[in-house]
Amino acid sequence: MKIRPLGDRVVIKRLEAEETTKSGIVLPGSAKERPQEAEIVAVGPGGVIDGKEVKMEVKVGDKVLFSKYSGTEVKMDGEEYTIIRQNDILAVVE
Amino acid sequence: MKIRPLGDRVVIKRLEAEETTKSGIVLPGSAKERPQEAEIVAVGPGGVIDGKEVKMEVKVGDKVLFSKYSGTEVKMDGEEYTIIRQNDILAVVE
Amino acid sequence: MKIRPLGDRVVIKRLEAEETTKSGIVLPGSAKERPQEAEIVAVGPGGVIDGKEVKMEVKVGDKVLFSKYSGTEVKMDGEEYTIIRQNDILAVVE
Amino acid sequence: MKIRPLGDRVVIKRLEAEETTKSGIVLPGSAKERPQEAEIVAVGPGGVIDGKEVKMEVKVGDKVLFSKYSGTEVKMDGEEYTIIRQNDILAVVE
Amino acid sequence: MKIRPLGDRVVIKRLEAEETTKSGIVLPGSAKERPQEAEIVAVGPGGVIDGKEVKMEVKVGDKVLFSKYSGTEVKMDGEEYTIIRQNDILAVVE
Amino acid sequence: MKIRPLGDRVVIKRLEAEETTKSGIVLPGSAKERPQEAEIVAVGPGGVIDGKEVKMEVKVGDKVLFSKYSGTEVKMDGEEYTIIRQNDILAVVE
Amino acid sequence: MKIRPLGDRVVIKRLEAEETTKSGIVLPGSAKERPQEAEIVAVGPGGVIDGKEVKMEVKVGDKVLFSKYSGTEVKMDGEEYTIIRQNDILAVVE
Repeated sequence: MKIRPLGDRVVIKRLEAEETTKSGIVLPGSAKERPQEAEIVAVGPGGVIDGKEVKMEVKVGDKVLFSKYSGTEVKMDGEEYTIIRQNDILAVVE
Repeated sequence: MKIRPLGDRVVIKRLEAEETTKSGIVLPGSAKERPQEAEIVAVGPGGVIDGKEVKMEVKVGDKVLFSKYSGTEVKMDGEEYTIIRQNDILAVVE
Repeated sequence: MKIRPLGDRVVIKRLEAEETTKSGIVLPGSAKERPQEAEIVAVGPGGVIDGKEVKMEVKVGDKVLFSKYSGTEVKMDGEEYTIIRQNDILAVVE
Repeated sequence: MKIRPLGDRVVIKRLEAEETTKSGIVLPGSAKERPQEAEIVAVGPGGVIDGKEVKMEVKVGDKVLFSKYSGTEVKMDGEEYTIIRQNDILAVVE
Repeated sequence: MKIRPLGDRVVIKRLEAEETTKSGIVLPGSAKERPQEAEIVAVGPGGVIDGKEVKMEVKVGDKVLFSKYSGTEVKMDGEEYTIIRQNDILAVVE
Repeated sequence: MKIRPLGDRVVIKRLEAEETTKSGIVLPGSAKERPQEAEIVAVGPGGVIDGKEVKMEVKVGDKVLFSKYSGTEVKMDGEEYTIIRQNDILAVVE
Repeated sequence: MKIRPLGDRVVIKRLEAEETTKSGIVLPGSAKERPQEAEIVAVGPGGVIDGKEVKMEVKVGDKVLFSKYSGTEVKMDGEEYTIIRQNDILAVVE
């Protein structure tokens, strides 16, 4: 992995629709905000963020749900990633 | 349950209209915000959220009232759930 | 009472216009926000709300003034109630 | 007095125009916000308000200046009062 | 002086244009916010304001620059005054 | 210098275009916010500002870059100055 | 380097498109915010920023991703730089 996120940021890779189906998560087509499933590929060190102690609760390899409207997209070595803050992760899918 | 919510989030399952009637809660059709009844199916660990200590006051199985405009909907194994923060829960119905 | 409010929330029952007259409170018809009189039927435990210690200053049975634009309405066993935060209560009528 | 204000709120009674003239305060008719003179009739206990320690600096009987756009009006036993937060009081007139 | 400002408020008297010229301050007619010169006639006690310790840095008699858009105007004994917060004072003119 | 800025404010004198060229700073004509170069002529004492400890990092004579949209302009003894908060200073030019 | 950034600010130099390609980062042309790659040329001292302890996590020479909409552009000795806060840096590219 070539990106080291700062602070409480994590780098995630969105999972394709097929993989989403396998894990049993189907995102409904309602008008409300729909989360997306992704896999974590890099985790920032946490620490004092905006003057508040943030402990990272996720680790590389975790499957997570996050809002598709949060974060910043980057493409690296031909693959697309998203950089988001840990607080924008809704849940870990186990 | 396959979703582990992070921080102060909880996963809830909305109760159907019939079940709502059984428990005696009827939600009026006024112009004001109307809460919905739901059952808690997963509870995050709480801890320091946004730099503030949050203690979880609800547990799996609790019937709760929450604003239907809060939270994020997900569908899992054919069932629909909502992920909300504990602070968006108004009350526990006993 | 079947609703247990969370945190600093309280459940109140609005007093009817006649009862309002008896207690001597008349709410003027001005353009400014007009409070409503209500009786408290359930009080949350208080504690740390949004990371701040909140001590409950009201108790079940208190007659209070509150802004009619605050809170969430619920109907239970045929009766209408409002769930509000203690901070939205203006004063106790004694 | 039948109203006990909560937290850092105080109940004030607006002074009439004649009384305003007697105390020497004349409020100019400019386009800027004009304060009003009032007498304090009830003072809340102060304490921790929004997680911050608030000490009450005014007492019953004080003549104060306050913004006429702040607070909530109530009528009690035929008299009109205003409930405001101590922080909305500009100054005590001595 | 008959007004005792609360908290971190101060009562100031605007200086006339001639006096402004004498002290050497000329306020330019640009489109940006222009400060006004005034003399302090009363100073609040400071203390904990909005939960933060405020120490008063100005004293009665100080000539100060302040934004003419801040504060509340009052007229007392035929003289006009402005009540502002210490934080709205830009500088002391010496 | 006749102005003593309060708190974390500093008084600066904008440098003319020629002087800007000499120091090697050229401000591009892009659509983004462009900083201006100035020299500090007076520095406030710092201390507790809005309840937070502020230590002054600049001193009289420093050349600094600041946003031309921040601060308040005053003219004194025929010279124009700007009063800004230290936090609005981007960098010291050495 | 002739600019010493204050507080938690850093001075960065945007990397040209060719260099971006070499490091393997390609920024997608989507409608979402696209970060830019840059090299850090000066780092502020950190310390207490807005009353919060900020520790600098980046150093001169780091390649970083940042939002192209953040920061302030300056031109110095014919080269263009951007001054941004450390918090606006998304990640270090290694």
